[in-house]
Amino acid sequence: MTRGFYIGRFQPYHEGHHAMVERIASEVDELVLGIGSADQSHTARNPFTAGERIEMLTKATTDIGVVTYAVPIEDLNRNAVWVSHVRSMSPRFDVAYSNNPLVVRLFEEAGVEVRQSPMFRREEFEGAEVRERMAEGDDWEELVPEAVADTIADINGVDRLREVIDSDT
Amino acid sequence: MTRGFYIGRFQPYHEGHHAMVERIASEVDELVLGIGSADQSHTARNPFTAGERIEMLTKATTDIGVVTYAVPIEDLNRNAVWVSHVRSMSPRFDVAYSNNPLVVRLFEEAGVEVRQSPMFRREEFEGAEVRERMAEGDDWEELVPEAVADTIADINGVDRLREVIDSDT
Amino acid sequence: MTRGFYIGRFQPYHEGHHAMVERIASEVDELVLGIGSADQSHTARNPFTAGERIEMLTKATTDIGVVTYAVPIEDLNRNAVWVSHVRSMSPRFDVAYSNNPLVVRLFEEAGVEVRQSPMFRREEFEGAEVRERMAEGDDWEELVPEAVADTIADINGVDRLREVIDSDT
Amino acid sequence: MTRGFYIGRFQPYHEGHHAMVERIASEVDELVLGIGSADQSHTARNPFTAGERIEMLTKATTDIGVVTYAVPIEDLNRNAVWVSHVRSMSPRFDVAYSNNPLVVRLFEEAGVEVRQSPMFRREEFEGAEVRERMAEGDDWEELVPEAVADTIADINGVDRLREVIDSDT
Amino acid sequence: MTRGFYIGRFQPYHEGHHAMVERIASEVDELVLGIGSADQSHTARNPFTAGERIEMLTKATTDIGVVTYAVPIEDLNRNAVWVSHVRSMSPRFDVAYSNNPLVVRLFEEAGVEVRQSPMFRREEFEGAEVRERMAEGDDWEELVPEAVADTIADINGVDRLREVIDSDT
Amino acid sequence: MTRGFYIGRFQPYHEGHHAMVERIASEVDELVLGIGSADQSHTARNPFTAGERIEMLTKATTDIGVVTYAVPIEDLNRNAVWVSHVRSMSPRFDVAYSNNPLVVRLFEEAGVEVRQSPMFRREEFEGAEVRERMAEGDDWEELVPEAVADTIADINGVDRLREVIDSDT
Repeated sequence: MTRGFYIGRFQPYHEGHHAMVERIASEVDELVLGIGSADQSHTARNPFTAGERIEMLTKATTDIGVVTYAVPIEDLNRNAVWVSHVRSMSPRFDVAYSNNPLVVRLFEEAGVEVRQSPMFRREEFEGAEVRERMAEGDDWEELVPEAVADTIADINGVDRLREVIDSDT
Repeated sequence: MTRGFYIGRFQPYHEGHHAMVERIASEVDELVLGIGSADQSHTARNPFTAGERIEMLTKATTDIGVVTYAVPIEDLNRNAVWVSHVRSMSPRFDVAYSNNPLVVRLFEEAGVEVRQSPMFRREEFEGAEVRERMAEGDDWEELVPEAVADTIADINGVDRLREVIDSDT
Repeated sequence: MTRGFYIGRFQPYHEGHHAMVERIASEVDELVLGIGSADQSHTARNPFTAGERIEMLTKATTDIGVVTYAVPIEDLNRNAVWVSHVRSMSPRFDVAYSNNPLVVRLFEEAGVEVRQSPMFRREEFEGAEVRERMAEGDDWEELVPEAVADTIADINGVDRLREVIDSDT
Repeated sequence: MTRGFYIGRFQPYHEGHHAMVERIASEVDELVLGIGSADQSHTARNPFTAGERIEMLTKATTDIGVVTYAVPIEDLNRNAVWVSHVRSMSPRFDVAYSNNPLVVRLFEEAGVEVRQSPMFRREEFEGAEVRERMAEGDDWEELVPEAVADTIADINGVDRLREVIDSDT
Repeated sequence: MTRGFYIGRFQPYHEGHHAMVERIASEVDELVLGIGSADQSHTARNPFTAGERIEMLTKATTDIGVVTYAVPIEDLNRNAVWVSHVRSMSPRFDVAYSNNPLVVRLFEEAGVEVRQSPMFRREEFEGAEVRERMAEGDDWEELVPEAVADTIADINGVDRLREVIDSDT
Repeated sequence: MTRGFYIGRFQPYHEGHHAMVERIASEVDELVLGIGSADQSHTARNPFTAGERIEMLTKATTDIGVVTYAVPIEDLNRNAVWVSHVRSMSPRFDVAYSNNPLVVRLFEEAGVEVRQSPMFRREEFEGAEVRERMAEGDDWEELVPEAVADTIADINGVDRLREVIDSDT
């Protein structure tokens, strides 16, 4: 049995994440989705709570074909202990997946196997894109799985994002 | 759709918890299991990490018949914001289950419906009993689901508990 | 008896705040002034300590005609629990006043009545303006109540602001 | 103008505190009441929130004859910086009052004048006594000012205390 | 070159620690002395600040014959990340020395070599003994190196200990 | 005996720091080097851990001719208590050295003697310059003592810096 670990902030979970999850699912038996910055919400960069993100992830990965766990990971703001923190919060895993250079570096310094993908950072840029489209009133739904769009509608997420952005400027 | 929320430290998840979970499963469609004191481990009272507890819970509730979520909840050490913290970390829920008077009080002051059960605090006393039997070399396996005993064996949990207890005294 | 709650950072308390306080005073019997970011001081954005801000507020609102409370509110850096935190630190209140969209949003999500005013964000822009004038040696005293100018002179506040700004750049 | 500082947890504010406050009021022009462990509530030792304690203090000291400030002081759990923390949260003061040996020591090491009183620790023991009587159903009202008893009745404080005590045992 | 790591709270540094240090010095080229609970002071269990403890350690180990580093380690209150925290604060080391079962366990789970000594926990019991003798007015100086006794005299440490103990009871 | 205190982030320790240290060494008998932001590492601005920085400092100051202490100082993110925090972590000192206006201000408000130097902020600008050259592949070794360059090579520091910078952009 192989268990993989994939971390993101999932603000929100979008097609870039989903493509990555599908690729990982073909390599592992079980997958832990670590929800980073779990303590942050109601900001321009992190509009949704960890609980809301668990809902998005869970619904969007129902048919992924492997057992998945959605695990919130709060920020400790100390990179040097981050891998230990992740490991203590997550079911044990054999391999980590990430396209973020810092995450890759931290796992490697800790002796954890990390796999990267050719679609370098697509998920990262796409997160900012989704939030910008929400703010601007453009079509963001096409960038996320349908179940995610439904959850965001349920919680009135677009209005929230616009209001918190408005406070930052 | 009704979603329930049940919180415990699950150190470890035992038959007292399991009886409670089975009862709740008959009343809800989905169940969130909040893992309290998620940041604590390697102590006499909290020997297991949040990740290890997720493994125990997940395996032991496979056949429970409702969708379950295992969500680690870190301590903030401020009772006045605890319910808000729980709500931000968990998928939305309609009713909370607890036999702990403080938890009941906090949810009620926040206007959340709470249901208690007649088996008052059985799960709490049983947790201490399991850990004491582990420490003393008595039969503790009969007090926990088989999947939990397997996980604890895997991680060499009884040795760990004895060593951390040894440090406290 | 109606008690209102109005939050700001009050760095420093200026005429924009004061106009807002006078307006609120006509609608409530008692007013809580929540001092946000109470743990921050000696920075370009937050030059004054919570204690210094209590002094400013108290002196400047002596004649406001309603009972006032000045309550420091430390940052928790978790928006999802902020309203609970405020409520635990403040005497109970019936209505919150704010022109900040994030604050409005957080109170509304928590079910607290919020009132906004037409003088949208005047107090916010004015705070930055006061600090900039202090830094540049321009006339800032005209933007604050006399009692505030006196307190800032007492603590040698303008020199402090210039020195901390100098460290940032 | 002389301003004094007197710190306590005020769980709740009782006649022992009140006698101390009356004595201090005869020596100073203004008095800051520091509310210690402001972040703690809903425990056997700290049942009331900082906001509830502000209400008690304010009502009970209306007729004390000096200007008073009620200032919540959150725990930092670092004795070495405690005096600096207090000073940053409080209006400037000339003399501190305390009968607690640790508090006296910390202020003295920081070079702050401290005055003690002959009624050594009466207020400390009385706090525990009030809470015990509440828990046991004995007459506790006679140990606190009437305004405090009213506030506690308003917030259903005795029930809360009993429930949180029940969780500890 | 071999570098060892030895952690203690050193409240104060006493002959039990010193015997351990001398033994380690015969096995390594350089020695890091980790000062645990560095953020704690002015309590019955942790009377001295980290800075005071650095002074004690440095003076008492001048003649130990190996290069020593005294490194304060603040508590994070999360056992699962403790080894990573220690490693980030300390010069790199090859082997850890401890007689504390929890510390041994944590290092071993993290894959760090740990050496224990036959004088099991002598240093731990001796720390409590020194503090008790200080409190009771008995002869404690014979239990610590002379340089440590001098530092404690300098900072008036026995008086401090008595006063903080007095606050606890 | 005079002991001086000099604080920096030392990311990394460079010739600007070293010139300052040599100047201070001519004025004091012992020197404490406070390592600021000790809890930060693996970021563009703070690439190295506190432990790595202790190694750099210790090796580079071997021949400085005065007793030196390298003391990590974690961030508390509260300027008002910063001096107390520093004092609790450091051996007692008589005079502080800094060219940073905020640090100078905080020490002066706390009544600590501070000495500044004519080479205003050279060390600060030089830190950014070293990191930029590392990132760009330019010659950075000429800006740091040889022992520092060796340590950075040992820990593969340039690669780390490039990877964490890559994550920020």
